[in-house]
Amino acid sequence: MKITKAVITAASKSQRTLPLQTLVDRDGEEKSVLRIIIEETLRAGIEEICLVICPGDEKSYAKVAGDHAGRLHFVHQKEALGYGHAIQCAQKFVDNDPVLHLVSDHLHVSRSSEGCAQQVVATAIAEKCAVSAVQSTPESALRQFGTVAGRSIRGKNNLYRIDRVVEKPTPTVAEQTLIVPGLRSSHYLCFFGIHVLTPLVFSILEEKLKIAQDPKTITLSDALEELAKREEYLALANLGWRYNIGKKYGLLTAQMALSLSGTDRNEVLSILVELLALREAGVSKSDSLNEIISGQ
Amino acid sequence: MKITKAVITAASKSQRTLPLQTLVDRDGEEKSVLRIIIEETLRAGIEEICLVICPGDEKSYAKVAGDHAGRLHFVHQKEALGYGHAIQCAQKFVDNDPVLHLVSDHLHVSRSSEGCAQQVVATAIAEKCAVSAVQSTPESALRQFGTVAGRSIRGKNNLYRIDRVVEKPTPTVAEQTLIVPGLRSSHYLCFFGIHVLTPLVFSILEEKLKIAQDPKTITLSDALEELAKREEYLALANLGWRYNIGKKYGLLTAQMALSLSGTDRNEVLSILVELLALREAGVSKSDSLNEIISGQ
Repeated sequence: MKITKAVITAASKSQRTLPLQTLVDRDGEEKSVLRIIIEETLRAGIEEICLVICPGDEKSYAKVAGDHAGRLHFVHQKEALGYGHAIQCAQKFVDNDPVLHLVSDHLHVSRSSEGCAQQVVATAIAEKCAVSAVQSTPESALRQFGTVAGRSIRGKNNLYRIDRVVEKPTPTVAEQTLIVPGLRSSHYLCFFGIHVLTPLVFSILEEKLKIAQDPKTITLSDALEELAKREEYLALANLGWRYNIGKKYGLLTAQMALSLSGTDRNEVLSILVELLALREAGVSKSDSLNEIISGQ
Repeated sequence: MKITKAVITAASKSQRTLPLQTLVDRDGEEKSVLRIIIEETLRAGIEEICLVICPGDEKSYAKVAGDHAGRLHFVHQKEALGYGHAIQCAQKFVDNDPVLHLVSDHLHVSRSSEGCAQQVVATAIAEKCAVSAVQSTPESALRQFGTVAGRSIRGKNNLYRIDRVVEKPTPTVAEQTLIVPGLRSSHYLCFFGIHVLTPLVFSILEEKLKIAQDPKTITLSDALEELAKREEYLALANLGWRYNIGKKYGLLTAQMALSLSGTDRNEVLSILVELLALREAGVSKSDSLNEIISGQ
């Protein structure tokens, strides 16, 4: 199994400017969100990337992709028909190959020196099957995530064989059908926003979308639930941290997380301490601090 | 004197995506940088805004301006001919009226309940002349800023009558010609990024650009130095804090400054403390914190 293609969905109408946002990456370089995500895929060995977008966003996205623009293939999701449909828009690009899939409104910080996507791809190649990154998640957060059930694989750390996938389960459904032995009490394995999908996932999505009354209701989880019945399908847990940059203070939180685990940790801590001191010092004493903060 | 027009320069080729960046404003609302700057002008009574841009940026800027897009007039700076030329591009829009001028790569946080631009405009209206916001700046930072000399006006707090303007002076030039009585030692009055300009400023720019060998060398400071000889021209000091969002960690610093003086201060402090705790706790102890941070 070789994995050299990625599909990134970025067609959500409310989040079209997210990939254009600028952050300073862990390496201390200023990059667009899109470039940070692209580089996450490149570390995983990806060569070609399909971006599923709203028509009209090609130019601005290509611009902020920098040197990587040549790797991008743009596919339009012409109508807002939901997440499952957005992924399925990449079917022609995917052809008959397994692909890495990321969303454009999350950033990932790995616990280890290997990238999160890189670890998922390595596992998919080693196990020759679809793999989703998951993370142990408390019951109170289930309504935000696709959730899987399965059993840990003996002798393989953090690896589970998935047999159920439910999109945003209620606590009752979760308790009845999604408990995974070995997790903390009231915790479940929820999607982390990184998947390696096999071509069958796209066929299943195509079938489901064809017969659906409302295509918007078809999620990736629906297809993966079906996949688990027809192919080997694994979950890899405990990769690191995931930041939803689409929510309020999401960009700030992601920036802080990148910086505090990156090369500029001390510089950013200094900025914080100075800002806090400035606000506490109040107006009268703050002139010299003001100068520090303004970078003068 | 009525001031209802503003000119915002946003044509710097290297900073075209800056106005598109998203921050959470002091009021806790997510806004583009452009919208934050537009709202700074609206608080000052502005009704129409001329944006000087690179050709091609209209659409994306209008999109992120939201409800305010109808107030925008776009003017192209077709070639990168410098800051003085960019301002002069707005001459037709300005016509014979005084205008508020802001740059698009700085955000301002006021010390008081009135906005920074609002205070500059109020002073210009009261004094019936051009006014530049300035701030006391240490000698070491002079090479970044236009610098003015003048005398404080008796009975008017923080107000100075300007008689010299020098763009980015050397410490020697500053010591010889730009000392302002009453400031701390080795401190000078530098521009703060907010001006009310009279029509004469645009005529002076036009003249200077016409005879310049290289238009790029003509700065706003050159025109204001001439203005000070021909009209009353004041400086208003001590308005608050200015954040250069075009430099590394500028967006992060501005976001933190907005939040720490805004309605979400406690929420943002919590995010910071949790992120710091998470990084310090290391991998093994961090699961529960991870869940907090991921917003689960």
